[in-house]
Amino acid sequence: MSDPAALARACADAMWADDTASRGLGMRLEDVGPGRARMSLVVTEAMVNGHGICHGGFIFALADSAMAFACNSFGEHAVAQHCAITFVRPARRGDTLTAEAVERTRSGRSGIYDVRVCDATGETLAEFRGHSRTTGGRFFAEG
Amino acid sequence: MSDPAALARACADAMWADDTASRGLGMRLEDVGPGRARMSLVVTEAMVNGHGICHGGFIFALADSAMAFACNSFGEHAVAQHCAITFVRPARRGDTLTAEAVERTRSGRSGIYDVRVCDATGETLAEFRGHSRTTGGRFFAEG
Amino acid sequence: MSDPAALARACADAMWADDTASRGLGMRLEDVGPGRARMSLVVTEAMVNGHGICHGGFIFALADSAMAFACNSFGEHAVAQHCAITFVRPARRGDTLTAEAVERTRSGRSGIYDVRVCDATGETLAEFRGHSRTTGGRFFAEG
Amino acid sequence: MSDPAALARACADAMWADDTASRGLGMRLEDVGPGRARMSLVVTEAMVNGHGICHGGFIFALADSAMAFACNSFGEHAVAQHCAITFVRPARRGDTLTAEAVERTRSGRSGIYDVRVCDATGETLAEFRGHSRTTGGRFFAEG
Repeated sequence: MSDPAALARACADAMWADDTASRGLGMRLEDVGPGRARMSLVVTEAMVNGHGICHGGFIFALADSAMAFACNSFGEHAVAQHCAITFVRPARRGDTLTAEAVERTRSGRSGIYDVRVCDATGETLAEFRGHSRTTGGRFFAEG
Repeated sequence: MSDPAALARACADAMWADDTASRGLGMRLEDVGPGRARMSLVVTEAMVNGHGICHGGFIFALADSAMAFACNSFGEHAVAQHCAITFVRPARRGDTLTAEAVERTRSGRSGIYDVRVCDATGETLAEFRGHSRTTGGRFFAEG
Repeated sequence: MSDPAALARACADAMWADDTASRGLGMRLEDVGPGRARMSLVVTEAMVNGHGICHGGFIFALADSAMAFACNSFGEHAVAQHCAITFVRPARRGDTLTAEAVERTRSGRSGIYDVRVCDATGETLAEFRGHSRTTGGRFFAEG
Repeated sequence: MSDPAALARACADAMWADDTASRGLGMRLEDVGPGRARMSLVVTEAMVNGHGICHGGFIFALADSAMAFACNSFGEHAVAQHCAITFVRPARRGDTLTAEAVERTRSGRSGIYDVRVCDATGETLAEFRGHSRTTGGRFFAEG
Protein backbone atom coordinates (compact mmCIF):
# COMPACT_ATOMS: atom_id res chain seq x y z
CA MET A 1 0.00 0.00 0.00
CA SER A 2 1.91 3.01 -1.20
CA ASP A 3 -0.65 5.70 -0.38
CA PRO A 4 0.08 6.91 3.19
CA ALA A 5 -3.52 8.01 3.80
CA ALA A 6 -4.94 4.67 2.66
CA LEU A 7 -2.36 2.81 4.73
CA ALA A 8 -3.26 4.84 7.83
CA ARG A 9 -6.93 4.05 7.26
CA ALA A 10 -6.29 0.35 6.78
CA CYS A 11 -4.17 0.13 9.92
CA ALA A 12 -6.88 1.95 11.87
CA ASP A 13 -9.57 -0.41 10.61
CA ALA A 14 -7.52 -3.41 11.69
CA MET A 15 -6.84 -1.90 15.12
CA TRP A 16 -10.40 -0.76 15.66
CA ALA A 17 -11.82 -4.21 14.97
CA ASP A 18 -9.57 -5.45 17.73
CA ASP A 19 -9.92 -2.64 20.23
CA THR A 20 -12.80 -3.79 22.39
CA ALA A 21 -11.66 -1.57 25.26
CA SER A 22 -11.88 1.72 23.35
CA ARG A 23 -15.20 0.72 21.79
CA GLY A 24 -16.55 -0.45 25.14
CA LEU A 25 -15.82 2.96 26.68
CA GLY A 26 -17.85 4.56 23.89
CA MET A 27 -14.96 6.12 21.97
CA ARG A 28 -15.40 7.08 18.34
CA LEU A 29 -12.60 7.28 15.82
CA GLU A 30 -13.43 10.54 14.04
CA ASP A 31 -10.48 10.80 11.69
CA VAL A 32 -7.10 9.22 11.06
CA GLY A 33 -4.16 9.91 8.79
CA PRO A 34 -0.39 9.41 8.67
CA GLY A 35 0.86 10.26 12.17
CA ARG A 36 -2.43 11.71 13.36
CA ALA A 37 -5.84 10.69 14.72
CA ARG A 38 -8.90 12.33 16.24
CA MET A 39 -11.17 10.51 18.67
CA SER A 40 -14.14 11.51 20.77
CA LEU A 41 -15.87 10.30 23.90
CA VAL A 42 -19.00 11.39 25.78
CA VAL A 43 -18.52 11.48 29.56
CA THR A 44 -21.11 9.14 31.05
CA GLU A 45 -22.48 8.66 34.55
CA ALA A 46 -20.12 5.74 35.04
CA MET A 47 -17.07 7.95 34.45
CA VAL A 48 -17.77 10.61 37.06
CA ASN A 49 -17.64 10.93 40.83
CA GLY A 50 -20.48 12.17 42.99
CA HIS A 51 -19.75 15.77 42.01
CA GLY A 52 -20.08 15.05 38.30
CA ILE A 53 -16.33 15.41 37.64
CA CYS A 54 -14.81 12.91 35.21
CA HIS A 55 -12.14 10.55 36.58
CA GLY A 56 -8.79 11.42 35.00
CA GLY A 57 -8.32 7.83 33.91
CA PHE A 58 -10.94 8.17 31.17
CA ILE A 59 -9.39 11.37 29.82
CA PHE A 60 -6.03 9.61 29.75
CA ALA A 61 -7.60 6.57 28.06
CA LEU A 62 -9.05 8.74 25.28
CA ALA A 63 -5.72 10.49 24.68
CA ASP A 64 -3.87 7.18 24.81
CA SER A 65 -6.19 5.65 22.22
CA ALA A 66 -5.81 8.66 19.92
CA MET A 67 -2.04 8.34 20.19
CA ALA A 68 -2.27 4.61 19.47
CA PHE A 69 -4.10 5.22 16.19
CA ALA A 70 -1.66 7.99 15.24
CA CYS A 71 1.51 6.00 15.94
CA ASN A 72 0.17 2.82 14.33
CA SER A 73 -0.65 4.55 11.04
CA PHE A 74 2.54 3.63 9.16
CA GLY A 75 2.06 -0.12 8.86
CA GLU A 76 4.29 -1.10 11.77
CA HIS A 77 2.99 -2.07 15.19
CA ALA A 78 3.87 0.50 17.82
CA VAL A 79 3.14 0.70 21.54
CA ALA A 80 3.13 3.50 24.10
CA GLN A 81 6.11 3.39 26.43
CA HIS A 82 5.90 6.60 28.43
CA CYS A 83 3.03 9.07 28.57
CA ALA A 84 2.52 12.30 30.52
CA ILE A 85 -0.72 14.17 30.96
CA THR A 86 -1.49 17.59 32.42
CA PHE A 87 -5.04 18.20 33.59
CA VAL A 88 -5.97 21.80 32.76
CA ARG A 89 -9.72 21.92 33.48
CA PRO A 90 -12.18 19.31 34.77
CA ALA A 91 -14.46 17.43 32.37
CA ARG A 92 -18.07 16.90 33.39
CA ARG A 93 -20.88 14.42 32.85
CA GLY A 94 -22.33 14.84 29.37
CA ASP A 95 -19.29 16.63 27.93
CA THR A 96 -18.13 15.47 24.53
CA LEU A 97 -14.35 15.19 24.70
CA THR A 98 -12.24 15.30 21.56
CA ALA A 99 -8.63 14.17 21.49
CA GLU A 100 -6.46 15.25 18.58
CA ALA A 101 -3.16 13.40 18.28
CA VAL A 102 -0.34 14.70 16.08
CA GLU A 103 3.17 13.46 15.55
CA ARG A 104 5.84 15.67 17.05
CA THR A 105 8.91 13.77 15.90
CA ARG A 106 9.83 10.29 14.75
CA SER A 107 13.28 8.78 14.51
CA GLY A 108 14.19 5.13 14.12
CA ARG A 109 11.82 3.05 16.24
CA SER A 110 10.80 5.96 18.50
CA GLY A 111 8.14 8.62 18.12
CA ILE A 112 6.65 11.45 20.16
CA TYR A 113 2.96 12.30 19.87
CA ASP A 114 1.14 15.30 21.33
CA VAL A 115 -2.55 14.96 22.11
CA ARG A 116 -4.80 17.86 23.09
CA VAL A 117 -8.12 16.97 24.72
CA CYS A 118 -10.82 19.62 24.32
CA ASP A 119 -14.48 19.97 25.19
CA ALA A 120 -17.18 20.85 22.66
CA THR A 121 -16.44 24.58 22.94
CA GLY A 122 -12.79 24.01 22.07
CA GLU A 123 -11.50 24.69 25.59
CA THR A 124 -8.42 22.63 26.45
CA LEU A 125 -9.08 20.10 29.21
CA ALA A 126 -5.80 18.20 29.10
CA GLU A 127 -2.47 18.09 27.28
CA PHE A 128 -0.84 14.70 26.74
CA ARG A 129 2.57 13.77 25.34
CA GLY A 130 3.33 10.15 24.57
CA HIS A 131 6.42 8.21 23.50
CA SER A 132 5.93 5.27 21.19
CA ARG A 133 8.19 2.46 20.10
CA THR A 134 7.71 0.05 17.21
CA THR A 135 7.66 -3.61 18.18
CA GLY A 136 8.87 -5.18 14.96
CA GLY A 137 5.45 -6.52 13.93
CA ARG A 138 3.54 -5.32 10.88
CA PHE A 139 -0.16 -4.89 10.08
CA PHE A 140 0.03 -6.33 6.59
CA ALA A 141 2.38 -8.72 4.85
CA GLU A 142 4.58 -6.90 2.37
CA GLY A 143 4.82 -8.12 -1.18
CA MET B 1 -9.08 14.37 64.25
CA SER B 2 -5.54 14.40 65.57
CA ASP B 3 -4.58 10.83 64.69
CA PRO B 4 -3.07 10.86 61.18
CA ALA B 5 -4.02 7.24 60.47
CA ALA B 6 -7.63 7.77 61.54
CA LEU B 7 -7.80 10.98 59.50
CA ALA B 8 -6.48 9.19 56.42
CA ARG B 9 -9.10 6.46 56.89
CA ALA B 10 -11.92 8.98 57.33
CA CYS B 11 -10.90 10.95 54.23
CA ALA B 12 -10.73 7.71 52.25
CA ASP B 13 -14.20 6.64 53.41
CA ALA B 14 -15.64 9.99 52.33
CA MET B 15 -13.92 9.80 48.96
CA TRP B 16 -14.81 6.18 48.33
CA ALA B 17 -18.51 6.80 48.94
CA ASP B 18 -18.31 9.41 46.21
CA ASP B 19 -16.04 7.66 43.75
CA THR B 20 -18.49 5.86 41.51
CA ALA B 21 -15.94 5.73 38.69
CA SER B 22 -13.30 3.75 40.63
CA ARG B 23 -15.94 1.43 42.08
CA GLY B 24 -17.55 0.99 38.67
CA LEU B 25 -14.24 -0.19 37.22
CA GLY B 26 -14.04 -2.79 39.98
CA MET B 27 -11.22 -1.21 41.98
CA ARG B 28 -10.73 -2.16 45.62
CA LEU B 29 -9.14 0.09 48.21
CA GLU B 30 -6.86 -2.36 50.02
CA ASP B 31 -5.14 -0.03 52.45
CA VAL B 32 -4.71 3.66 53.14
CA GLY B 33 -2.62 5.77 55.51
CA PRO B 34 -1.05 9.23 55.70
CA GLY B 35 0.40 9.88 52.24
CA ARG B 36 -0.08 6.33 50.99
CA ALA B 37 -2.69 4.00 49.53
CA ARG B 38 -2.89 0.56 47.95
CA MET B 39 -5.57 -0.35 45.44
CA SER B 40 -6.26 -3.38 43.28
CA LEU B 41 -8.11 -4.17 40.09
CA VAL B 42 -8.80 -7.36 38.16
CA VAL B 43 -8.36 -6.95 34.39
CA THR B 44 -11.68 -7.89 32.80
CA GLU B 45 -12.72 -8.75 29.26
CA ALA B 46 -13.95 -5.16 28.79
CA MET B 47 -10.47 -3.78 29.49
CA VAL B 48 -8.52 -5.74 26.90
CA ASN B 49 -8.09 -5.74 23.15
CA GLY B 50 -8.48 -8.76 20.93
CA HIS B 51 -5.07 -10.11 21.99
CA GLY B 52 -5.95 -10.03 25.67
CA ILE B 53 -3.68 -7.04 26.43
CA CYS B 54 -5.04 -4.48 28.88
CA HIS B 55 -5.62 -0.94 27.52
CA GLY B 56 -3.15 1.43 29.20
CA GLY B 57 -5.98 3.70 30.26
CA PHE B 58 -7.14 1.26 32.93
CA ILE B 59 -3.64 0.86 34.36
CA PHE B 60 -3.35 4.63 34.49
CA ALA B 61 -6.80 4.90 36.10
CA LEU B 62 -5.80 2.47 38.87
CA ALA B 63 -2.56 4.36 39.58
CA ASP B 64 -4.37 7.69 39.45
CA SER B 65 -6.99 6.49 41.96
CA ALA B 66 -4.29 5.18 44.31
CA MET B 67 -2.55 8.55 44.14
CA ALA B 68 -5.86 10.33 44.80
CA PHE B 69 -6.40 8.41 48.03
CA ALA B 70 -2.79 9.00 49.09
CA CYS B 71 -2.76 12.75 48.45
CA ASN B 72 -6.23 13.27 49.98
CA SER B 73 -5.26 11.60 53.26
CA PHE B 74 -4.40 14.77 55.21
CA GLY B 75 -7.87 16.35 55.46
CA GLU B 76 -7.43 18.79 52.59
CA HIS B 77 -8.86 18.25 49.12
CA ALA B 78 -6.15 17.69 46.55
CA VAL B 79 -6.26 17.00 42.81
CA ALA B 80 -3.83 15.57 40.30
CA GLN B 81 -2.29 18.17 38.03
CA HIS B 82 0.37 16.32 36.07
CA CYS B 83 0.95 12.58 35.89
CA ALA B 84 3.47 10.48 33.98
CA ILE B 85 3.37 6.73 33.48
CA THR B 86 5.88 4.29 32.06
CA PHE B 87 4.55 0.98 30.80
CA VAL B 88 7.10 -1.72 31.65
CA ARG B 89 5.22 -4.95 30.85
CA PRO B 90 1.75 -5.63 29.46
CA ALA B 91 -1.11 -6.61 31.76
CA ARG B 92 -3.43 -9.39 30.64
CA ARG B 93 -7.04 -10.47 31.09
CA GLY B 94 -7.55 -11.95 34.53
CA ASP B 95 -4.45 -10.36 36.07
CA THR B 96 -4.92 -8.81 39.49
CA LEU B 97 -3.14 -5.45 39.41
CA THR B 98 -2.01 -3.77 42.61
CA ALA B 99 -1.05 -0.11 42.74
CA GLU B 100 0.94 1.13 45.72
CA ALA B 101 1.09 4.91 46.08
CA VAL B 102 3.65 6.57 48.35
CA GLU B 103 4.43 10.20 48.95
CA ARG B 104 7.77 11.30 47.55
CA THR B 105 7.75 14.91 48.76
CA ARG B 106 5.25 17.54 49.88
CA SER B 107 5.80 21.26 50.22
CA GLY B 108 3.14 23.94 50.59
CA ARG B 109 0.20 23.04 48.37
CA SER B 110 2.19 20.68 46.10
CA GLY B 111 3.01 17.01 46.45
CA ILE B 112 4.68 14.28 44.41
CA TYR B 113 3.45 10.69 44.61
CA ASP B 114 5.06 7.58 43.15
CA VAL B 115 2.86 4.63 42.28
CA ARG B 116 4.13 1.21 41.28
CA VAL B 117 1.67 -1.11 39.56
CA CYS B 118 2.47 -4.81 39.93
CA ASP B 119 0.87 -8.09 38.97
CA ALA B 120 0.10 -10.87 41.46
CA THR B 121 3.67 -12.22 41.24
CA GLY B 122 5.11 -8.83 42.18
CA GLU B 123 6.43 -8.03 38.70
CA THR B 124 6.35 -4.33 37.90
CA LEU B 125 3.92 -3.51 35.10
CA ALA B 126 4.05 0.27 35.27
CA GLU B 127 5.67 3.13 37.16
CA PHE B 128 3.64 6.30 37.70
CA ARG B 129 4.62 9.67 39.16
CA GLY B 130 1.92 12.22 39.89
CA HIS B 131 1.91 15.84 41.03
CA SER B 132 -0.93 16.96 43.29
CA ARG B 133 -2.14 20.35 44.41
CA THR B 134 -4.50 21.17 47.26
CA THR B 135 -7.62 23.08 46.24
CA GLY B 136 -8.39 24.90 49.47
CA GLY B 137 -11.35 22.68 50.38
CA ARG B 138 -11.43 20.38 53.39
CA PHE B 139 -13.04 17.00 54.11
CA PHE B 140 -14.27 17.87 57.58
CA ALA B 141 -15.10 21.09 59.40
CA GLU B 142 -12.44 21.90 61.94
CA GLY B 143 -13.34 22.62 65.53
CA MET C 1 2.68 48.87 27.89
CA SER C 2 -0.26 47.83 25.78
CA ASP C 3 1.64 46.39 22.82
CA PRO C 4 2.21 42.67 23.53
CA ALA C 5 5.32 42.49 21.32
CA ALA C 6 6.91 45.52 22.98
CA LEU C 7 6.05 44.14 26.42
CA ALA C 8 7.63 40.79 25.57
CA ARG C 9 10.78 42.59 24.39
CA ALA C 10 10.94 44.75 27.52
CA CYS C 11 10.50 41.75 29.83
CA ALA C 12 13.23 39.91 27.93
CA ASP C 13 15.62 42.85 28.20
CA ALA C 14 15.08 43.01 31.95
CA MET C 15 15.58 39.25 32.33
CA TRP C 16 18.61 39.10 30.08
CA ALA C 17 20.43 41.83 32.01
CA ASP C 18 20.00 39.64 35.08
CA ASP C 19 20.63 36.23 33.58
CA THR C 20 24.34 35.79 34.13
CA ALA C 21 24.01 32.02 33.94
CA SER C 22 22.57 31.91 30.42
CA ARG C 23 25.04 34.52 29.20
CA GLY C 24 27.93 32.75 30.89
CA LEU C 25 27.09 29.54 29.00
CA GLY C 26 27.24 31.50 25.75
CA MET C 27 23.53 31.51 24.97
CA ARG C 28 22.11 34.09 22.58
CA LEU C 29 18.54 35.34 22.65
CA GLU C 30 17.68 35.30 18.96
CA ASP C 31 14.05 36.34 19.11
CA VAL C 32 11.24 36.83 21.60
CA GLY C 33 7.52 37.58 21.41
CA PRO C 34 4.34 36.98 23.40
CA GLY C 35 4.56 33.36 24.62
CA ARG C 36 7.57 32.47 22.47
CA ALA C 37 11.34 32.76 22.36
CA ARG C 38 14.24 31.43 20.30
CA MET C 39 17.71 30.98 21.75
CA SER C 40 20.94 29.49 20.47
CA LEU C 41 24.10 28.00 21.92
CA VAL C 42 27.32 26.70 20.42
CA VAL C 43 28.51 23.43 22.00
CA THR C 44 31.99 24.09 23.38
CA GLU C 45 34.81 21.82 24.51
CA ALA C 46 33.69 22.36 28.12
CA MET C 47 30.26 20.91 27.40
CA VAL C 48 31.31 17.59 25.93
CA ASN C 49 32.74 14.31 27.18
CA GLY C 50 35.83 12.61 25.79
CA HIS C 51 33.87 11.38 22.78
CA GLY C 52 32.72 14.86 21.79
CA ILE C 53 29.09 14.26 22.86
CA CYS C 54 27.35 17.15 24.60
CA HIS C 55 26.24 16.59 28.22
CA GLY C 56 22.42 16.57 28.34
CA GLY C 57 22.47 19.21 31.06
CA PHE C 58 23.47 21.92 28.59
CA ILE C 59 20.74 20.98 26.12
CA PHE C 60 18.24 21.10 28.97
CA ALA C 61 19.63 24.46 30.13
CA LEU C 62 19.15 25.96 26.66
CA ALA C 63 15.57 24.71 26.42
CA ASP C 64 14.84 25.84 29.98
CA SER C 65 16.14 29.35 29.23
CA ALA C 66 14.06 29.57 26.05
CA MET C 67 10.98 28.55 28.03
CA ALA C 68 11.82 31.15 30.70
CA PHE C 69 11.86 33.97 28.14
CA ALA C 70 8.62 32.69 26.57
CA CYS C 71 6.66 32.35 29.82
CA ASN C 72 7.97 35.67 31.22
CA SER C 73 6.83 37.64 28.17
CA PHE C 74 3.49 38.86 29.57
CA GLY C 75 4.71 41.19 32.32
CA GLU C 76 4.30 38.75 35.19
CA HIS C 77 7.14 36.79 36.74
CA ALA C 78 6.86 33.08 36.05
CA VAL C 79 9.02 30.11 37.01
CA ALA C 80 9.43 26.58 35.72
CA GLN C 81 7.90 23.97 38.00
CA HIS C 82 8.11 20.72 36.06
CA CYS C 83 10.03 20.04 32.86
CA ALA C 84 10.48 16.91 30.77
CA ILE C 85 13.01 16.40 28.01
CA THR C 86 13.44 13.63 25.45
CA PHE C 87 16.86 13.25 23.87
CA VAL C 88 16.40 12.29 20.23
CA ARG C 89 19.93 12.61 18.78
CA PRO C 90 23.27 13.52 20.36
CA ALA C 91 24.70 17.02 19.98
CA ARG C 92 28.40 17.39 19.25
CA ARG C 93 31.24 19.83 19.86
CA GLY C 94 30.89 22.83 17.56
CA ASP C 95 27.17 22.29 16.83
CA THR C 96 25.00 25.38 16.97
CA LEU C 97 21.87 24.43 18.88
CA THR C 98 18.67 26.40 18.48
CA ALA C 99 15.78 26.13 20.94
CA GLU C 100 12.38 27.39 19.87
CA ALA C 101 9.86 27.77 22.69
CA VAL C 102 6.15 28.16 21.99
CA GLU C 103 3.20 28.35 24.32
CA ARG C 104 0.97 25.30 24.23
CA THR C 105 -1.71 26.46 26.66
CA ARG C 106 -2.12 28.99 29.45
CA SER C 107 -4.85 29.11 32.07
CA GLY C 108 -4.86 31.10 35.29
CA ARG C 109 -1.37 31.03 36.78
CA SER C 110 -0.25 27.92 34.85
CA GLY C 111 1.22 27.52 31.39
CA ILE C 112 2.66 24.76 29.23
CA TYR C 113 5.53 25.48 26.83
CA ASP C 114 6.98 23.20 24.16
CA VAL C 115 10.58 23.66 23.15
CA ARG C 116 12.23 21.94 20.20
CA VAL C 117 16.03 21.89 20.13
CA CYS C 118 17.53 21.55 16.65
CA ASP C 119 20.99 21.57 15.13
CA ALA C 120 22.02 23.87 12.27
CA THR C 121 20.54 21.51 9.66
CA GLY C 122 17.15 21.58 11.37
CA GLU C 123 17.38 18.03 12.72
CA THR C 124 15.59 17.63 16.04
CA LEU C 125 18.00 16.85 18.89
CA ALA C 126 15.59 17.11 21.81
CA GLU C 127 11.95 17.81 22.63
CA PHE C 128 11.16 19.59 25.89
CA ARG C 129 7.84 20.35 27.58
CA GLY C 130 7.77 22.68 30.58
CA HIS C 131 5.13 23.78 33.05
CA SER C 132 5.30 27.33 34.36
CA ARG C 133 3.58 29.13 37.18
CA THR C 134 3.37 32.85 37.83
CA THR C 135 4.78 33.98 41.18
CA GLY C 136 2.73 37.13 41.72
CA GLY C 137 5.60 39.53 40.95
CA ARG C 138 5.64 41.87 37.95
CA PHE C 139 8.40 43.24 35.71
CA PHE C 140 7.10 46.80 35.61
CA ALA C 141 4.92 48.91 37.89
CA GLU C 142 1.50 49.41 36.36
CA GLY C 143 0.15 52.91 36.04
CA MET D 1 34.50 -8.78 37.08
CA SER D 2 32.04 -10.78 39.10
CA ASP D 3 31.73 -8.43 42.10
CA PRO D 4 28.90 -5.97 41.36
CA ALA D 5 30.34 -3.27 43.63
CA ALA D 6 33.79 -3.50 42.05
CA LEU D 7 32.23 -3.46 38.57
CA ALA D 8 30.22 -0.34 39.42
CA ARG D 9 33.39 1.35 40.71
CA ALA D 10 35.37 0.40 37.60
CA CYS D 11 32.65 1.64 35.23
CA ALA D 12 32.48 4.91 37.17
CA ASP D 13 36.24 5.38 37.00
CA ALA D 14 36.18 4.89 33.23
CA MET D 15 33.28 7.30 32.82
CA TRP D 16 34.72 9.91 35.14
CA ALA D 17 38.03 10.04 33.28
CA ASP D 18 36.03 10.86 30.20
CA ASP D 19 33.43 13.20 31.64
CA THR D 20 35.05 16.60 31.19
CA ALA D 21 31.65 18.31 31.33
CA SER D 22 30.71 17.09 34.81
CA ARG D 23 34.23 17.77 36.12
CA GLY D 24 34.27 21.19 34.50
CA LEU D 25 31.08 22.16 36.31
CA GLY D 26 32.73 21.21 39.58
CA MET D 27 30.76 18.04 40.28
CA ARG D 28 32.14 15.43 42.66
CA LEU D 29 31.31 11.74 42.52
CA GLU D 30 30.73 10.96 46.20
CA ASP D 31 29.69 7.35 45.96
CA VAL D 32 28.68 4.75 43.42
CA GLY D 33 27.35 1.21 43.51
CA PRO D 34 25.20 -1.16 41.45
CA GLY D 35 22.30 0.95 40.20
CA ARG D 36 23.07 3.94 42.40
CA ALA D 37 25.30 7.01 42.60
CA ARG D 38 25.65 10.13 44.73
CA MET D 39 27.15 13.34 43.34
CA SER D 40 27.57 16.85 44.70
CA LEU D 41 28.01 20.33 43.30
CA VAL D 42 28.58 23.74 44.86
CA VAL D 43 26.48 26.49 43.26
CA THR D 44 28.91 29.11 41.98
CA GLU D 45 28.50 32.71 40.87
CA ALA D 46 28.45 31.55 37.24
CA MET D 47 25.37 29.37 37.87
CA VAL D 48 23.08 32.03 39.32
CA ASN D 49 21.10 34.98 38.07
CA GLY D 50 21.28 38.50 39.52
CA HIS D 51 19.10 37.42 42.46
CA GLY D 52 21.42 34.61 43.45
CA ILE D 53 19.02 31.86 42.30
CA CYS D 54 20.60 28.86 40.55
CA HIS D 55 19.61 28.29 36.91
CA GLY D 56 17.59 25.08 36.69
CA GLY D 57 19.91 23.75 34.02
CA PHE D 58 22.68 23.11 36.54
CA ILE D 59 20.37 21.27 38.93
CA PHE D 60 19.22 19.12 36.02
CA ALA D 61 22.84 18.54 34.95
CA LEU D 62 23.77 17.29 38.42
CA ALA D 63 20.79 14.92 38.54
CA ASP D 64 21.47 13.75 34.99
CA SER D 65 25.11 12.99 35.82
CA ALA D 66 24.11 11.06 38.95
CA MET D 67 21.68 9.02 36.88
CA ALA D 68 24.37 8.39 34.27
CA PHE D 69 26.72 6.88 36.85
CA ALA D 70 23.89 4.81 38.34
CA CYS D 71 22.65 3.37 35.04
CA ASN D 72 26.18 2.73 33.72
CA SER D 73 27.18 0.67 36.75
CA PHE D 74 26.48 -2.77 35.30
CA GLY D 75 29.18 -2.94 32.62
CA GLU D 76 26.94 -1.97 29.70
CA HIS D 77 26.84 1.50 28.19
CA ALA D 78 23.52 3.23 28.82
CA VAL D 79 22.19 6.64 27.88
CA ALA D 80 19.37 8.84 29.13
CA GLN D 81 16.39 8.95 26.79
CA HIS D 82 13.71 10.84 28.68
CA CYS D 83 14.07 12.77 31.91
CA ALA D 84 11.59 14.79 33.98
CA ILE D 85 12.44 17.17 36.80
CA THR D 86 10.26 18.96 39.33
CA PHE D 87 11.72 22.04 40.98
CA VAL D 88 10.56 22.10 44.61
CA ARG D 89 12.67 24.91 46.14
CA PRO D 90 15.26 27.28 44.66
CA ALA D 91 18.98 26.63 45.11
CA ARG D 92 21.23 29.58 45.93
CA ARG D 93 24.80 30.68 45.42
CA GLY D 94 27.11 28.77 47.75
CA ASP D 95 24.69 25.90 48.38
CA THR D 96 26.15 22.42 48.22
CA LEU D 97 23.73 20.30 46.23
CA THR D 98 23.68 16.52 46.57
CA ALA D 99 21.99 14.27 44.05
CA GLU D 100 21.24 10.70 45.05
CA ALA D 101 20.29 8.41 42.18
CA VAL D 102 18.63 5.04 42.80
CA GLU D 103 17.29 2.46 40.41
CA ARG D 104 13.52 2.18 40.40
CA THR D 105 13.15 -0.66 37.91
CA ARG D 106 15.16 -2.30 35.15
CA SER D 107 13.87 -4.64 32.47
CA GLY D 108 15.63 -5.66 29.27
CA ARG D 109 17.46 -2.65 27.87
CA SER D 110 15.37 -0.09 29.77
CA GLY D 111 15.73 1.34 33.26
CA ILE D 112 14.08 3.99 35.43
CA TYR D 113 16.16 5.99 37.91
CA ASP D 114 14.92 8.40 40.59
CA VAL D 115 17.21 11.20 41.68
CA ARG D 116 16.53 13.46 44.66
CA VAL D 117 18.51 16.69 44.81
CA CYS D 118 18.94 18.11 48.32
CA ASP D 119 20.75 21.01 49.93
CA ALA D 120 23.17 20.62 52.84
CA THR D 121 20.33 20.58 55.39
CA GLY D 122 18.63 17.70 53.61
CA GLU D 123 15.77 19.79 52.20
CA THR D 124 14.56 18.54 48.83
CA LEU D 125 15.25 21.03 46.02
CA ALA D 126 14.27 18.89 43.06
CA GLU D 127 12.94 15.45 42.16
CA PHE D 128 14.13 13.88 38.91
CA ARG D 129 13.06 10.68 37.13
CA GLY D 130 15.06 9.44 34.18
CA HIS D 131 14.65 6.64 31.66
CA SER D 132 17.78 4.93 30.40
CA ARG D 133 18.47 2.56 27.56
CA THR D 134 21.52 0.42 26.97
CA THR D 135 23.30 1.04 23.69
CA GLY D 136 24.90 -2.35 23.11
CA GLY D 137 28.42 -1.20 23.99
CA ARG D 138 30.38 -2.43 27.00
CA PHE D 139 32.95 -0.86 29.32
CA PHE D 140 35.26 -3.85 29.43
CA ALA D 141 35.97 -6.77 27.14
CA GLU D 142 34.59 -9.98 28.55
CA GLY D 143 36.87 -12.94 28.87
